[in-house]
Amino acid sequence: MKLRALLLGAVGGALTLLGGQVQADEGMWPFNHLPRAALQKKYGFEPSAEWIAHVRRSSVRVAGCSGSFVSEQGLTLTNHHCAEACISRLSSPQQDLIKQGFYARSPAEERVCPGYEIHQLGEITDVTARIQAATRGLDGAAFHRAFKAESARLEKDCASGDELTCEVVSLYHGGLYELYQYRRYRDVRLVFAPEVAIAFFGGDPDNFNFPRYDLDLAFLRAYADGKPVQTPDHLAWSPRPLEVNELTFVSGNPGSTERLLTVAELTYLRDHRLVEQLLSLARYRGFLNEYAERGPEARRVATSEIFGVENAFKALRGEHQALLRPKFFAQLVERERELRARVKAQPELQRKYGGAWAAIEQAQARLAVLERDLNWIEGAGGSRPAWAKTPLFSWAKLLVRASEERTRPNEERLEELSDARLPGLEQRLLAPRPLNQAFEIAKLGLGLTLLREELGADHPFVRRVLGKAAPEELAAELVRGSSLEDVAERQRLWRAGKPAILASKDRMVQLALAIDADARELRAQYENEVQSAMTKSSELVAQARFAVYGMSSYPDATFTPRLSFGTVRGWREPGKVVPAFTRIGGAFERATGRFPFALPRSWLDKQRELDLDTPFNFVTDNDIVGGNSGSPVINREGELVGLIFDGNIHSLGGSYGFDMALNRAVAVDGRAIRHTLTTIYAASRLVTELGVAPPP
Amino acid sequence: MKLRALLLGAVGGALTLLGGQVQADEGMWPFNHLPRAALQKKYGFEPSAEWIAHVRRSSVRVAGCSGSFVSEQGLTLTNHHCAEACISRLSSPQQDLIKQGFYARSPAEERVCPGYEIHQLGEITDVTARIQAATRGLDGAAFHRAFKAESARLEKDCASGDELTCEVVSLYHGGLYELYQYRRYRDVRLVFAPEVAIAFFGGDPDNFNFPRYDLDLAFLRAYADGKPVQTPDHLAWSPRPLEVNELTFVSGNPGSTERLLTVAELTYLRDHRLVEQLLSLARYRGFLNEYAERGPEARRVATSEIFGVENAFKALRGEHQALLRPKFFAQLVERERELRARVKAQPELQRKYGGAWAAIEQAQARLAVLERDLNWIEGAGGSRPAWAKTPLFSWAKLLVRASEERTRPNEERLEELSDARLPGLEQRLLAPRPLNQAFEIAKLGLGLTLLREELGADHPFVRRVLGKAAPEELAAELVRGSSLEDVAERQRLWRAGKPAILASKDRMVQLALAIDADARELRAQYENEVQSAMTKSSELVAQARFAVYGMSSYPDATFTPRLSFGTVRGWREPGKVVPAFTRIGGAFERATGRFPFALPRSWLDKQRELDLDTPFNFVTDNDIVGGNSGSPVINREGELVGLIFDGNIHSLGGSYGFDMALNRAVAVDGRAIRHTLTTIYAASRLVTELGVAPPP
Repeated sequence: MKLRALLLGAVGGALTLLGGQVQADEGMWPFNHLPRAALQKKYGFEPSAEWIAHVRRSSVRVAGCSGSFVSEQGLTLTNHHCAEACISRLSSPQQDLIKQGFYARSPAEERVCPGYEIHQLGEITDVTARIQAATRGLDGAAFHRAFKAESARLEKDCASGDELTCEVVSLYHGGLYELYQYRRYRDVRLVFAPEVAIAFFGGDPDNFNFPRYDLDLAFLRAYADGKPVQTPDHLAWSPRPLEVNELTFVSGNPGSTERLLTVAELTYLRDHRLVEQLLSLARYRGFLNEYAERGPEARRVATSEIFGVENAFKALRGEHQALLRPKFFAQLVERERELRARVKAQPELQRKYGGAWAAIEQAQARLAVLERDLNWIEGAGGSRPAWAKTPLFSWAKLLVRASEERTRPNEERLEELSDARLPGLEQRLLAPRPLNQAFEIAKLGLGLTLLREELGADHPFVRRVLGKAAPEELAAELVRGSSLEDVAERQRLWRAGKPAILASKDRMVQLALAIDADARELRAQYENEVQSAMTKSSELVAQARFAVYGMSSYPDATFTPRLSFGTVRGWREPGKVVPAFTRIGGAFERATGRFPFALPRSWLDKQRELDLDTPFNFVTDNDIVGGNSGSPVINREGELVGLIFDGNIHSLGGSYGFDMALNRAVAVDGRAIRHTLTTIYAASRLVTELGVAPPP
Repeated sequence: MKLRALLLGAVGGALTLLGGQVQADEGMWPFNHLPRAALQKKYGFEPSAEWIAHVRRSSVRVAGCSGSFVSEQGLTLTNHHCAEACISRLSSPQQDLIKQGFYARSPAEERVCPGYEIHQLGEITDVTARIQAATRGLDGAAFHRAFKAESARLEKDCASGDELTCEVVSLYHGGLYELYQYRRYRDVRLVFAPEVAIAFFGGDPDNFNFPRYDLDLAFLRAYADGKPVQTPDHLAWSPRPLEVNELTFVSGNPGSTERLLTVAELTYLRDHRLVEQLLSLARYRGFLNEYAERGPEARRVATSEIFGVENAFKALRGEHQALLRPKFFAQLVERERELRARVKAQPELQRKYGGAWAAIEQAQARLAVLERDLNWIEGAGGSRPAWAKTPLFSWAKLLVRASEERTRPNEERLEELSDARLPGLEQRLLAPRPLNQAFEIAKLGLGLTLLREELGADHPFVRRVLGKAAPEELAAELVRGSSLEDVAERQRLWRAGKPAILASKDRMVQLALAIDADARELRAQYENEVQSAMTKSSELVAQARFAVYGMSSYPDATFTPRLSFGTVRGWREPGKVVPAFTRIGGAFERATGRFPFALPRSWLDKQRELDLDTPFNFVTDNDIVGGNSGSPVINREGELVGLIFDGNIHSLGGSYGFDMALNRAVAVDGRAIRHTLTTIYAASRLVTELGVAPPP
């Protein structure tokens, strides 16, 4: 699976069933707010300040995923599926690195990952007072404007050059605001990736399942000034075998959880948003799978999208099914009822917080009216309009928006275009990304067909976009009439500013210009009538929760560094026990020779030389969600013992509630990595750098 | 749209919101139980016994749709989308009749519709006492067995040769059982069909919408002994212009309604079954649309399936959205609460009926456990397992099942294989149906992929079916290894019986044999643990409803002849009024020249000769559902004024409740039919036979 954050704006999330009480191993804790006493009490282990700092500085954020430094020279371990966009951009019809794998035998062979960045968390500053002062007494659009302006100021003052980037992080839904400063590494290179056949062995059928047999890893390297960066803080490979019941830590960036949602929000999610997303994914999936049948090159260019869509579909379906379980949902309802009753019992609390739930319900009702247009015309909450399935359109929209926003003061811009965010946007915009024209036309054709279907043929926006053209016809015209695949052209338009954009003959830029006013209007309606009310009221609910239950809980995930703790252990299913470890030999038993159960040639050739008893994958009860992909699994010595790449099927239900009996994180065992790098891939340069070369 | 019955086992249905009170124009009334007094009271019109008999005998059932005799020589008017399977089977790569249309200029040119039958209702006999006597005191499997056996006996005694077929119809969920005897016309020929571009102008975007501009019609003809049948009862074309607010009758075969479902059933439908069906359709749709991009021949062979799937998707989505409206659902909950409270208030009623709701809930819970396996391995309630997307498999399964069942006494067979049903099955099995091998392989490949996805790669059934093969690989092997496309081979196996089946080398027959035991076991579990309890308890709920509210309501639809009454009228949408009629000129205004808004050449060529003010389509507030496609719209003189082909978008919400303010039936105006047959199609033979030739 792909525990990437923000995938389609929806993967991830989990909602504790308890009031303010946190279950033993539940929680994704900020490094500066660890429950050290609880840890000591349960495991007799309290990490030292050095331990914490070391693990935190060894951990990174990369490509919507997590990762860790594993050598002094910036070598970074993450998942294959996190590096997949890089590997795929470096591939060509002649050389399919997704299929063949990649290994840089010398430093010179390490290849730049277009658009990739690695972020390493540095300083954290409490800015609660600043934000609260700036927004005090404000509501609606005014609140939203003031919050955005103050955040933009704080982030700009904190970021410096291209090397540092800063984000205001809202913890506990505004109970606490912190300013996170990250070191940006903008030159990231691919060092090693195995064949997708073993990185994603079992494919979609085995995704989110266990037992598993996946070598879902890739090694990247952070560079600065053309040289590998020095990373004194990095994780050493554990020399000690990991055991069942052993204490494990997962350090990573859980993307977003929804453990504080109200019943109104959960109901909307269950009955509308998740259904719409699933239907749209199912349709797109049917299209993509059949598109790949056009031929080998079509299959190659579609593969990455297919993996992403299949993964998102399975993940969201699991979330949806969890919310549909009546007993589970009843618990969520009961939890809210109890909190509201306690608030009501204290006049002071009732006065401050009592109106929040109704306000959220109202905002949800407004959202229900807006959402279809919003999604299809602008894209909500940072998500792309679903029909903009081609990067050509996303680039055009960014160019158009940026040219307009940069004429405004930093504090008044759309938040994704503030000064602090521009360097990252530019980095992604100008990353080379080869496109296949036929594929872009087909995707956009489907997107425009869906646009007409969802909004209706007589919707004024649809009429404006389509005119008399058929969707496929317009798609072909737009894709063929755009030069944005050319990085130089993107660069020219990015630098030239508004007049050049307005004068552009690029059909995709013209389209983005033509619909910008409609899209902005919907965005403004959403921000002023829904988002600002939601932000404010969610804060009130969170504050009420603290007022009633105290501070014993962790904040919702925010795609920022967190630590979770747990133990290595299997679980029980009706009629069977699922053990914690699989062995390398199991992959050979499961193999059928057919995709997705076909082992790569390299494995079949080396089968006899492998120790088939080597642990391959394992499960722990650490509490993780989307964004944790690529997280290191760490033992109490602070050493690396594994690499998170998936959750079991129950962990999807876990999006809205952590069930320690069933939810499991799935990881590659460090021993399998060492053994296969040595035996199958003969990656001696890597093995030496990792310090895991077997005794001679 | 395609208001066909039983399409994917799911289209149709509507649930009145009232207790026992029926809204003015609500209801699909059996011809022998018409609310004549109510009709007289509201419209000052009481149809005579002759009027009723004439309309009933002029109405027919055809291809999951409705139709009417419109000449003395068995000429039958129905929808293009009902004749579509015929037109498509008569097409070839060289001659695409779907695209070009068809007109038999002479009787000799009329072409046999493979597998088509026309059924005309004759005698109706009350058999309530027989069924009740046979099932008295029985429960579960015993009840189901006894009911099936008695029905099979009644149907067999009633049917005679190939000319008559009989069905036991359960009205009011077993409050009343009637034996319907139909005259079967097994030789049905295609006389006329316009181009699909005008039959389905506006395509999926306009489907279930209004204003509309569709000539969704086809003329068929019933033959016997190689000659047109004599049909003294047939509908005359009205010479009088149809007007707004005029009283209209619709005579047709509404497929199935769900107006008596309990909250437990509705909840299951809303949260599980409809979601699963929609996801599966969305996926299939994405596949089909992209499959059609393989080339013109691929598009031709996929078109019919695409129409069916798009239509079903839109229809089910409308139903689902209706059930998700909280206010609407709350009304359904309240209706049940009231009925149960009234039952509880009378000890006698409570003793007899009080336990029914809990029993239904229990059966639903059992179904929830069984349904996935049941759907994917056997197919539930007569629906096909969703992966059996190729007729090759359906034929193989029928051959295998029939060879086994025919060795058993009639009363002990699976109900679809009773003696009374065999002639119809044989007719369909032996109808020529050209297949495109690539398309069959692709569909089955998707089906097998879904099978593995839904049941899981480790499900014993999946392992048995797939072995080590990839789904696409097995699909190709099965399709290429089957000779069932050859009618002679199907005939040989149908006649040869069990030993020949067991000895067959046909790969599809072998597959059907290999999985038959598993499938039968699930079917038996379903019948004994779910279906029998549902049948019995639904009857109890229906009886309780009669006991409390009396007999003023109509029975749920059963795909048997019914009459509904209403008036021609538009409706109000927020901010606009939708008028009742469109004009032929409107089609030219809406045309873009691009599919699905491209008018056919014939229309463009004759535009100047057309009277553009001629009424084209219109709406009425008649209460119809899936199965009513092709129904004649009749005025009080018993003459034909229109042809039902769709419902508006609100009529989909109407699946569970009839809202007279919004629900509308959509029909082709008889004047447009006459005008275009004359002016565009120069179909003089037809025009003369219909008696609608314009004055010279």
